[in-house]
Amino acid sequence: MTNAVTYELLHRDKKTGARRGVIHTPHGDIQTPVFMPVGTQGAVKAMRPEQVADMGAEIILANTYHLYLRPGHEIVKEAGGLHKFMNWDRAILTDSGGFQVFSLGQLRKITEEGVSFQSHIDGSRHMLSPEKAVEIQNALGSDIMMAFDECAPYPADRSYIKDSMERTCRWLERCKAAHKDVERQSLFGIMQGGMYKDLRRESAERIVDMDLPGYSIGGLSVGEPKELMLDILDDCVDLLPEDKPRYLMGVGTPDYLFEGVERGLDMFDCVEPTRIARHGLATTSHGRINIKNAKFERDFTPLDPECDCYTCRNYSRAYIRHMMKSGEMMSAMLISNHNLHFLIHMMAGIREAIEEDRFTEFKKEFYEKYGGFK
Amino acid sequence: MTNAVTYELLHRDKKTGARRGVIHTPHGDIQTPVFMPVGTQGAVKAMRPEQVADMGAEIILANTYHLYLRPGHEIVKEAGGLHKFMNWDRAILTDSGGFQVFSLGQLRKITEEGVSFQSHIDGSRHMLSPEKAVEIQNALGSDIMMAFDECAPYPADRSYIKDSMERTCRWLERCKAAHKDVERQSLFGIMQGGMYKDLRRESAERIVDMDLPGYSIGGLSVGEPKELMLDILDDCVDLLPEDKPRYLMGVGTPDYLFEGVERGLDMFDCVEPTRIARHGLATTSHGRINIKNAKFERDFTPLDPECDCYTCRNYSRAYIRHMMKSGEMMSAMLISNHNLHFLIHMMAGIREAIEEDRFTEFKKEFYEKYGGFK
Repeated sequence: MTNAVTYELLHRDKKTGARRGVIHTPHGDIQTPVFMPVGTQGAVKAMRPEQVADMGAEIILANTYHLYLRPGHEIVKEAGGLHKFMNWDRAILTDSGGFQVFSLGQLRKITEEGVSFQSHIDGSRHMLSPEKAVEIQNALGSDIMMAFDECAPYPADRSYIKDSMERTCRWLERCKAAHKDVERQSLFGIMQGGMYKDLRRESAERIVDMDLPGYSIGGLSVGEPKELMLDILDDCVDLLPEDKPRYLMGVGTPDYLFEGVERGLDMFDCVEPTRIARHGLATTSHGRINIKNAKFERDFTPLDPECDCYTCRNYSRAYIRHMMKSGEMMSAMLISNHNLHFLIHMMAGIREAIEEDRFTEFKKEFYEKYGGFK
Repeated sequence: MTNAVTYELLHRDKKTGARRGVIHTPHGDIQTPVFMPVGTQGAVKAMRPEQVADMGAEIILANTYHLYLRPGHEIVKEAGGLHKFMNWDRAILTDSGGFQVFSLGQLRKITEEGVSFQSHIDGSRHMLSPEKAVEIQNALGSDIMMAFDECAPYPADRSYIKDSMERTCRWLERCKAAHKDVERQSLFGIMQGGMYKDLRRESAERIVDMDLPGYSIGGLSVGEPKELMLDILDDCVDLLPEDKPRYLMGVGTPDYLFEGVERGLDMFDCVEPTRIARHGLATTSHGRINIKNAKFERDFTPLDPECDCYTCRNYSRAYIRHMMKSGEMMSAMLISNHNLHFLIHMMAGIREAIEEDRFTEFKKEFYEKYGGFK
């Protein structure tokens, strides 16, 4: 029995923990380290899927919580699965819905069985459990399924984090037991443990024991100081097996990607590139710019003079500003395209740098222009 | 001195007034009869320009009023003109702003000089006159410029329409005098006269006397009964010269296009295809559908089973409905693409039918499926 998803390590950077690899999936290979665009509801916002593929994306992420509530996983299944439904034939990773239901605050209640919650759409009552999260993701047919976990808040006291982490480990066992067709879809485990290194270690040991095809680090980037996050990463990335992909959930600004890669992480996702685009914010080699700024009114240069994406080849800051000020969807379409291309292109540069053992130099050059770790 | 825009008649349908021609412009040829997508603010809403070109559009329309107020015609001129600013290298037609300022109601005042009005954006005060409308359109650099006219309301009494029509004729003389570079841009005159046939005739005589490169029929589709509009068209299309393009402004539903073509009109425009798309309405061979309708929840067929557009080749009604219900821009992107493709493809069919002297049969077949004249 072969796992749907396997990892191949191609090269390890000589000076850092950065690693260059390939993830093999039923929907094609993914060159790592990789940034995964997010298509929450079954679409990368303001983008056609082939535009996302054309810029080099080999995997996107979709959200179990959203697709379960609307249109419903059974409808996606009837449509022939999520790949066909959304017209994307490359790899898809689905989260478990855990993060979203825990974010509902007063609208949800945690028990050993799972989480009961009210829909943010219509207030209807639902229950997500390890078994249900697997059932939904089976119906969606993603290549990589995430375990149903609790992404614990920050700050939280040690006893809360310990209980939560242990429950997440028990839930992972139930997810693994519920997931049958491991040749079609691979289930990844999630390390928790908050900001407590010993709990992170315990979590890692327990989930690695389950011998899953991949692992992620959850519960970071939840409001803690950046230095604390990096300190935790310093300590816990190597607790995950070398022969499996390592995924840092919900992280996707350029500086975080560099820091994550440096510590040996392979996969990253974030809604930020498309979300900030809708507010007129573009990521460039020289830092972020707000296209609504009056200084761009007669600026006929591209968003990023060093970028060769569709947007930067064809449109000026003045035009994109006009689109934004005029309420045209075109502004979100153009900036989303640029922001996604920026990260995907940056990751391609990182992969090349790792292959040539010059990741450190590449990072230094990037930070000098970009403005360093923010 | 050669006019920027010239018309070549290729074939006349044997049984109707329908005619097949080509309009030559500095930005390429336009096969007629033609439907022109509208890019009000310098973008066809929810579409990339090459997508509009790929489906066969050879000309788009942009609005002088909107571009004058935002970003300002001087900025568009500095950008290198509207073609470059918006990344569209085929032909562009700009209206004069007349229709928009007259639509402002209490916010505008008409004098012989022109129309003073308040911006719908910030309430600032402005004046549009024949000379100003020409100046703005010269700055935008459109291939076809429209004269500054009054699109009179319906109903309106004869004396109002007569005064308005005569003023529009005087304004046309001023537009013609103000427009210098006729080899770069062509000015079209506009026939007015409301629902009074004798005034239409007088208007036609006066504007045709000015020997302009093209003419349009304005002041129709302003709330009058459809039968009345067709009756007026029956009477007045032939008042326009045969060797110039004839343009029916603001008309763009399938049935109106057929009726207009049948009476000898060559050019049409309408915001409808992209506007209704944003509300979830799709035009199909079998009439209009509302994708929000619950019956499409598990409908995995395309918007229009007979359509081969990008949307219909790749997405189901169920998916587009999900996008619409979820507030994703993708719904407007996909339906706009389909609706525009539908009309452009329909016009291609009409052109072929005219060439083969079977326009009447083609119209009959279309109406049988579509549901006739609505």
